[in-house]
Amino acid sequence: MDKIKPRTLSGFMELLPEKQAKMEKMMDILRKTYSLYGFSALDTPIIEASEILLAKGGGETEKQIYRFSKGDSDLSLRFDLTVPLAKYVALNYGQLAFPFRRYQIGKVFRGERAQRGRFREFYQADIDIIGDGELDIMNEAEIPSIIYSTFTKLGLKKFKIRVNNRKILNGFFQISGISDKAEAVMRTIDKLEKIGASKCKELIAEEGIPAKTADEIMDFITTPGRSTEKLEALKKYEGRNELFDTGLSELRTVVTYLPEFGVPEENFEIDLTIARGLDYYTGTVYETILTDYPEIGSVCSGGRYDDLAGYYTDKKLPGVGISIGLTRLFYVLDEQGLLSDEIITAPADVLIIPMTEDFSKAVETATLFRENGIRTMLYSENKKFKSKVSYADKIGVPFTVFIGEDEIGRGLIKIKDMQSGEQFSEKPEEAARRVREAVILKNKKPVICG
Amino acid sequence: MDKIKPRTLSGFMELLPEKQAKMEKMMDILRKTYSLYGFSALDTPIIEASEILLAKGGGETEKQIYRFSKGDSDLSLRFDLTVPLAKYVALNYGQLAFPFRRYQIGKVFRGERAQRGRFREFYQADIDIIGDGELDIMNEAEIPSIIYSTFTKLGLKKFKIRVNNRKILNGFFQISGISDKAEAVMRTIDKLEKIGASKCKELIAEEGIPAKTADEIMDFITTPGRSTEKLEALKKYEGRNELFDTGLSELRTVVTYLPEFGVPEENFEIDLTIARGLDYYTGTVYETILTDYPEIGSVCSGGRYDDLAGYYTDKKLPGVGISIGLTRLFYVLDEQGLLSDEIITAPADVLIIPMTEDFSKAVETATLFRENGIRTMLYSENKKFKSKVSYADKIGVPFTVFIGEDEIGRGLIKIKDMQSGEQFSEKPEEAARRVREAVILKNKKPVICG
Repeated sequence: MDKIKPRTLSGFMELLPEKQAKMEKMMDILRKTYSLYGFSALDTPIIEASEILLAKGGGETEKQIYRFSKGDSDLSLRFDLTVPLAKYVALNYGQLAFPFRRYQIGKVFRGERAQRGRFREFYQADIDIIGDGELDIMNEAEIPSIIYSTFTKLGLKKFKIRVNNRKILNGFFQISGISDKAEAVMRTIDKLEKIGASKCKELIAEEGIPAKTADEIMDFITTPGRSTEKLEALKKYEGRNELFDTGLSELRTVVTYLPEFGVPEENFEIDLTIARGLDYYTGTVYETILTDYPEIGSVCSGGRYDDLAGYYTDKKLPGVGISIGLTRLFYVLDEQGLLSDEIITAPADVLIIPMTEDFSKAVETATLFRENGIRTMLYSENKKFKSKVSYADKIGVPFTVFIGEDEIGRGLIKIKDMQSGEQFSEKPEEAARRVREAVILKNKKPVICG
Repeated sequence: MDKIKPRTLSGFMELLPEKQAKMEKMMDILRKTYSLYGFSALDTPIIEASEILLAKGGGETEKQIYRFSKGDSDLSLRFDLTVPLAKYVALNYGQLAFPFRRYQIGKVFRGERAQRGRFREFYQADIDIIGDGELDIMNEAEIPSIIYSTFTKLGLKKFKIRVNNRKILNGFFQISGISDKAEAVMRTIDKLEKIGASKCKELIAEEGIPAKTADEIMDFITTPGRSTEKLEALKKYEGRNELFDTGLSELRTVVTYLPEFGVPEENFEIDLTIARGLDYYTGTVYETILTDYPEIGSVCSGGRYDDLAGYYTDKKLPGVGISIGLTRLFYVLDEQGLLSDEIITAPADVLIIPMTEDFSKAVETATLFRENGIRTMLYSENKKFKSKVSYADKIGVPFTVFIGEDEIGRGLIKIKDMQSGEQFSEKPEEAARRVREAVILKNKKPVICG
């Protein structure tokens, strides 16, 4: 028979088992952490009617979307998790309790040009809090705590949550009388870190903004100091513009509750250059940077918006949300060598190798181990002893159990710690305890070493 | 602005948060149980090249598949998890350790005609054990234990794992001299339970099979007794056909190890009518029936096959696997009222309602609770007391915490058990302990009550 060459499409992540084990661990941590903050799991379809997904329409989205017909239906694959959420909330409005907190970790699809580290099918991990008509600023204040918990539990230490407030930005532009040029200016100041202050000022001036105003803008966005010092410095603009004042008060609330939310000062900063696009966000905006790898860009971003589902409903549904591009994050962590090799990625914690023809004792031991929550694999292939041991090495299992006539006669099993090489002949219950303790310790190790 | 009516396509499951919580719990149990048996998680792309997915081609698959073009690429959505596994193993052959055990829980897509309870996008939960050239019968013997653990942990009690061996069936057909009519006969005996013995015999006779042979077939497939008695009765066919003898010996092995694998007799039976299709399976085959709901059909099926990836590679890759149609299972369990209402489906275990303007103490308490692993939601909307309490009722949260001036002054919090109505003023640490204990108890309750 002619063979078809097996291949996986480029731009589609497909991991070997050891790497997948790390990805699974990351997803598990995300699910658990989001749950700790009262978010419900949601699972919307991957296929939606095109008219639903393209309600906003235009731009890159329409070009990148996977769209096709089946029978009479015009269908598309979701390209993010926000549009499906908007549809879901509009559709189920009467059956949801607001504020509605949901998380969704799911694949989205974008037919981008193939590039290294760019994926066409990738996981997003989103959380959103949706209010009915209004939503208190405390929800925005809680987000840094969620980001901090998530990354800390993943094992990251050196990261910074950067926060700004769009009302402050827009209010300041109104004060400076350049609201009509806000778009161009925001695009420029967003690049401050990359291009430096003098180039930034030059570009602002090129927009036809007077030198004095350009100076003021530069002064404003480079306000120095810690969060509390920045808040203090921003007071000088207070009382001149209502929007600005509201934004400053909101930002103050966010900063005020950081200690009670358990967010250390060194993992947080006010960054007045962050805008995160033009139309959507209206209040607090968030970015998260790996301190040692700023070139990666933000690994967790989002913000406050006022109108989640305006395309589908008249209800005013404000919200705040953040998103992690999980597939890309995994890819860059792996590339930078930041995925830990200390966690167990073997398919099992124990491999049981029977040394007798009758497998009864081996099976009994496997069942006992599994009842004790130990991931146990039974090796039952009819191979030479050397092949069996080499299988244990290949899968990287932490413990191997040998069950021979001798042990069975004495009511014992022989267990080998594959890392230390130590061997023990002991009762199955004792061996189970030994493995459990070792596994619990290993499983406490974080998946990211950064 | 004109609104687009929000809708979800028919044939696509989208659950409200409380139901989704039950689905998540089921998925979590599947992941954990499969892991206990040494299966690695795998995650293959949803989109594959059409030539890969349609390597086998023809039949219903080709009609139902979601196939489309993007640029120059001819793409399709996976319609099962087996073809992607075959591709994966053929592609990564050199980097995998065999036997290779993997589980995958993922969505698959089939553009079937819309029918009640039929889904076009649905989860399959598959496990497979793939051997390199050969695979010991013990792997087949282990499968009933995995099915038993899975359904028991989900909370099901009344289910039966039915097992047959294709070598016994095919061997018996050879003995009876009707191998050329095996296909039609198998299709008929597969219906025995539905149509009854006399109708079954009639249909067999209609295939042009002599009455005496039809009698023998009926005798064979209705062999009475428990597993061990059936094995005993089947001895009378032994020694006449090699294939039959191998099958009987394999079936004996499967039955022999059931006690050590922890599978009770009442959850297992040999059913000589089970064939599970014509071409694919070559050894042990499995079905799982909910005893009180036989009309649902098998909720977990599979078997042993000899050639996983023949379309992609010359390597002989035999295997054994089972699959749960998770979305359909969830749907029928829900329809039959078998999903438990006793487990926590609220987005949080505790809702904290601050009664003061300063939220510091409330936030501090939320952080403490979360550090104790308690899923905690902070209610910070500026509403009347009544609305706040009604929110707690709506989300069905087990505990509510009120933090007012009075409690803050005494270093206490007021916690209310929403089910019993009891209230306690106590230290936050004590309240956390109370909640943890209650939640651990509740979380031990099974998701299915059957």
